[in-house]
Amino acid sequence: MSLACGIDVGGTKIAGGVVDEHGVILEALRVESPATDAEAIEEAIAGLVTDLRSRHDIATVGVGAAGYIDKARAVVLFAPNVAWRNEDLKGELEKRVDLPVVIENDANAAAWGEFVYGAGHDVDDLLLVTVGTGVGGGLVLDGEVYRGANGVGAEIGHMRVVPNGILCGCGKHGCFEQYASGSALVREARALAMSGAMIAQGMLQRAGGDLNAITGPLITEAAQHGDQGAIQQLSELGRWLGEGIASLTEILDPGVVVIGGGVSEADELLLGPTREAFGAQLVGRGFRPIPEIRKARLGNRAGLIGAADLSRR
Amino acid sequence: MSLACGIDVGGTKIAGGVVDEHGVILEALRVESPATDAEAIEEAIAGLVTDLRSRHDIATVGVGAAGYIDKARAVVLFAPNVAWRNEDLKGELEKRVDLPVVIENDANAAAWGEFVYGAGHDVDDLLLVTVGTGVGGGLVLDGEVYRGANGVGAEIGHMRVVPNGILCGCGKHGCFEQYASGSALVREARALAMSGAMIAQGMLQRAGGDLNAITGPLITEAAQHGDQGAIQQLSELGRWLGEGIASLTEILDPGVVVIGGGVSEADELLLGPTREAFGAQLVGRGFRPIPEIRKARLGNRAGLIGAADLSRR
Amino acid sequence: MSLACGIDVGGTKIAGGVVDEHGVILEALRVESPATDAEAIEEAIAGLVTDLRSRHDIATVGVGAAGYIDKARAVVLFAPNVAWRNEDLKGELEKRVDLPVVIENDANAAAWGEFVYGAGHDVDDLLLVTVGTGVGGGLVLDGEVYRGANGVGAEIGHMRVVPNGILCGCGKHGCFEQYASGSALVREARALAMSGAMIAQGMLQRAGGDLNAITGPLITEAAQHGDQGAIQQLSELGRWLGEGIASLTEILDPGVVVIGGGVSEADELLLGPTREAFGAQLVGRGFRPIPEIRKARLGNRAGLIGAADLSRR
Amino acid sequence: MSLACGIDVGGTKIAGGVVDEHGVILEALRVESPATDAEAIEEAIAGLVTDLRSRHDIATVGVGAAGYIDKARAVVLFAPNVAWRNEDLKGELEKRVDLPVVIENDANAAAWGEFVYGAGHDVDDLLLVTVGTGVGGGLVLDGEVYRGANGVGAEIGHMRVVPNGILCGCGKHGCFEQYASGSALVREARALAMSGAMIAQGMLQRAGGDLNAITGPLITEAAQHGDQGAIQQLSELGRWLGEGIASLTEILDPGVVVIGGGVSEADELLLGPTREAFGAQLVGRGFRPIPEIRKARLGNRAGLIGAADLSRR
Repeated sequence: MSLACGIDVGGTKIAGGVVDEHGVILEALRVESPATDAEAIEEAIAGLVTDLRSRHDIATVGVGAAGYIDKARAVVLFAPNVAWRNEDLKGELEKRVDLPVVIENDANAAAWGEFVYGAGHDVDDLLLVTVGTGVGGGLVLDGEVYRGANGVGAEIGHMRVVPNGILCGCGKHGCFEQYASGSALVREARALAMSGAMIAQGMLQRAGGDLNAITGPLITEAAQHGDQGAIQQLSELGRWLGEGIASLTEILDPGVVVIGGGVSEADELLLGPTREAFGAQLVGRGFRPIPEIRKARLGNRAGLIGAADLSRR
Repeated sequence: MSLACGIDVGGTKIAGGVVDEHGVILEALRVESPATDAEAIEEAIAGLVTDLRSRHDIATVGVGAAGYIDKARAVVLFAPNVAWRNEDLKGELEKRVDLPVVIENDANAAAWGEFVYGAGHDVDDLLLVTVGTGVGGGLVLDGEVYRGANGVGAEIGHMRVVPNGILCGCGKHGCFEQYASGSALVREARALAMSGAMIAQGMLQRAGGDLNAITGPLITEAAQHGDQGAIQQLSELGRWLGEGIASLTEILDPGVVVIGGGVSEADELLLGPTREAFGAQLVGRGFRPIPEIRKARLGNRAGLIGAADLSRR
Repeated sequence: MSLACGIDVGGTKIAGGVVDEHGVILEALRVESPATDAEAIEEAIAGLVTDLRSRHDIATVGVGAAGYIDKARAVVLFAPNVAWRNEDLKGELEKRVDLPVVIENDANAAAWGEFVYGAGHDVDDLLLVTVGTGVGGGLVLDGEVYRGANGVGAEIGHMRVVPNGILCGCGKHGCFEQYASGSALVREARALAMSGAMIAQGMLQRAGGDLNAITGPLITEAAQHGDQGAIQQLSELGRWLGEGIASLTEILDPGVVVIGGGVSEADELLLGPTREAFGAQLVGRGFRPIPEIRKARLGNRAGLIGAADLSRR
Repeated sequence: MSLACGIDVGGTKIAGGVVDEHGVILEALRVESPATDAEAIEEAIAGLVTDLRSRHDIATVGVGAAGYIDKARAVVLFAPNVAWRNEDLKGELEKRVDLPVVIENDANAAAWGEFVYGAGHDVDDLLLVTVGTGVGGGLVLDGEVYRGANGVGAEIGHMRVVPNGILCGCGKHGCFEQYASGSALVREARALAMSGAMIAQGMLQRAGGDLNAITGPLITEAAQHGDQGAIQQLSELGRWLGEGIASLTEILDPGVVVIGGGVSEADELLLGPTREAFGAQLVGRGFRPIPEIRKARLGNRAGLIGAADLSRR
């Protein structure tokens, strides 16, 4: 396989990298994202590709973006953070860079990256669950990215887990990501600290008494230093995560579940409670294969690596 | 295509039929199921096939059974109603009938039947949701039955929809089928009647004052005659069904959703509220293709027809 | 009975009035509340009393304030909107105005006002439920204000109705007031409008397309003009209200339930669904007296009138 | 004070006892209850009184019975286990025994017993929560039994704690007693054991492998011997109990909460988790008196003792 360029389009930054056939990033760049101007982002992506291409023999381009991508992997139907609506991104980029381009949902791209080069390199199937600002999902099955009928599947963060539950940015109540994301972790820790609960005082102290300085990394660090309040919060997050993954396993039957996203840095402080809750909720234990729950390996570069790799298949 | 024999193994009966390449059943038979004796059921199935084969030129056999079937479509890992545990059903039957046999989960088989000959004959993808004693699911995607990594997917009835909700026979609380099945419909109608609510008196009267005589068909019939209590119960069932299908659509992204099972006989009295709740819960309306919700067409023969057809592919 | 001065301490305003023995307000005044300065509020209250007293023969003073008041009706243990913590408000005010003063929780005072002069004038008992920014409660039983063991009872807004539900300002999840208050009404209507739902377009249009201009009065007005979205939102609010009142009735067994607060202006558009849900949820219908649900009569002056009246008993 | 006769009417037994002014039972008897025949029960009660009176100088009779009792403490409006409907039980018994009789709800009677002679002898107020087959409640406030407007209050077991939750015998979903009673404890332990969970194997073994032999006392005993599954089940029960008591405390503001009923025999294995959950859920911690949670002292004789004592006041 030749070199491929992977692009990861976020709400504030666009990352680009040159990826070889072993999944190694030979060079990576990052530019600001002019998120509200569809055409300007396309120019920025083309600029990144052109720049990287001047130093590397790039044959294809893969772009990962949050949102609904059509099944032909060409058109962005809707992107929550960027000004694309029914945008033929593949066409626009191919016009600009004169290389074959594929567009992929960012969680799908990350799932593919983990599948080929990361936590799933030794298995045939995996469900990636990313625990970050929201909860994202990507499924690889029989060596293919699962795309559903329209290309918009695996939006696991909006499975409803609590009727009349917490209001989600999507307008529904009780979405999975309101309970199992890094944002949920922070919201709950802050609410606990604000309520004056003793168990939250350690976190609050680490935050210099400033509620808004309680962040995901702070909670993880506190837990790693033995703070009981932080351990409890990660455990509670793990419980929701594990129970949600049990529902997803009934539906999708993945071979392996890989937990990624920023909060996965908490390692066993998150994964232990996740596995326990998962095991307690899965139907038919003893009569069915139980998917293993693993930590992701590629960190926040999984999407870039995955998108690059998908572009050359 | 030649003739195929389809077998549908239930808890109390085994149905067998000869299915032609148009999905037409040329002859059908039914025998009692000796459900507690694994070998006796195999003999019974073989007997059915042999009998039908004496009058028809059968080339293959497809068997649909409730439970977990392995991905090779050969071994029954676990069947809730029958005494099979890790049973090589394909091997046992091929020994007895000397024809190629495939084993399939019954809801998958029914989904396939509807896909090829029924409500989904004109589309490329469908999710079948059967609303009967429980809630079953089968997904056909890109012209293939979805089998997950291990062959045990699409068990949508055990997606959890209410934390700490109604206790399910599976040991978990709040499973989808405790809210969206025919059993749920009957349980709720009886509880309402028992509570003395005026609105349930019409149903109770139709049941001759006997709570236990309030059944799914009775509720449907009452609703079709304008009974407000029965209409409300079906509408409530439809609401749960539609909200659950919204979660499933986020995850699976089906092209079409087909509602089968006994309760689907209530037609628009069920499907109307289902569509309304589905539409109100789906994220990203306006920016994504919305799957159509249709009624199944093959009734309780979908599994037999689908199993037969799968055996010749 | 002689004239009494009633004071209603809010977060932004302090209202004072002279109330006669028929519950008629002879004169009323309003001043800004210096809410963050405990002493300044006391000065402001004393100023109001002195001013009114210069024109009326006031014999006693009753003060209603949100928060925990001790059982002796003297000390404000905690006030959410005002800078009082364990403040001997009775002592401070009596020093300043040289009249007997009683302090009462504002919802208790309002319940007493409705009991003596309003919707409960003909009964011996009532539970007042105020549906405003939050949900407040006051209970009058056997002709006495219910004060619990410590004076801090009837905080019905913080009964938990949904485990893991919407986060409340108090730090808990799923409090009643997150589902049955005017704030809940507005939050849900805005979320619906933001989601693009057709049914919310009428409200959004009335609001000139500005989500933030969707308010409680706007929703009520829209509903009174037949807007289906607004009617549905009030009906949903009524459902939560009625179901919560059913729980409260199991616990408190009130003779009459009076619905007050700004949203009660929606009249039957709110009270109808409230009664329906209440009736459907109450245990033992047919074997117990069912409390009547009525609309409050004194509007936002119930607290002032009630506090004044309590001061002369 | 003179001697009083206390009667406790259960579904299968009627207990009678002679109680002195120190709350000591001088003699106690028990007979079968002819529960389906209203008159026969009255005869049985009268027989018990007459028998006891032949050996003791009884001046009054107090009867405790499950159900709705009117505020005059005379008429049984409805009794779930006995054939009384609008039965003038006081009149019927006074005719037969020629002594003054008072009728009281059994949980109210037990609350009174604990208040005068048991866990609440040193306080002015208490809320008794009985954790047995169901969850019962009785409130004593300012030295009086709380009776509400109609005599049917403190039915705390039917406060709804989970919308769409477990179906209750009363016809509603999600009643408190479906989560916090001894029956809930047993139901959950059995479901866990049936699901094959390792953690439940200790309990199942103690029950000789028979699911139906897992009972409340068995779970308590197992927990006392360190069985992790049993400890977890009691802890989970305590969590529901404590969270429910938090809601009740917002509403009722009791001075002390006393936990009675059979499951309270588990002592700190139940009360520890109850206190923890209660503390974490109560609003305004730090600004309000927090009721102490204590174990009941009079066991299953609280009702008889309380009823006797109430009859002489």
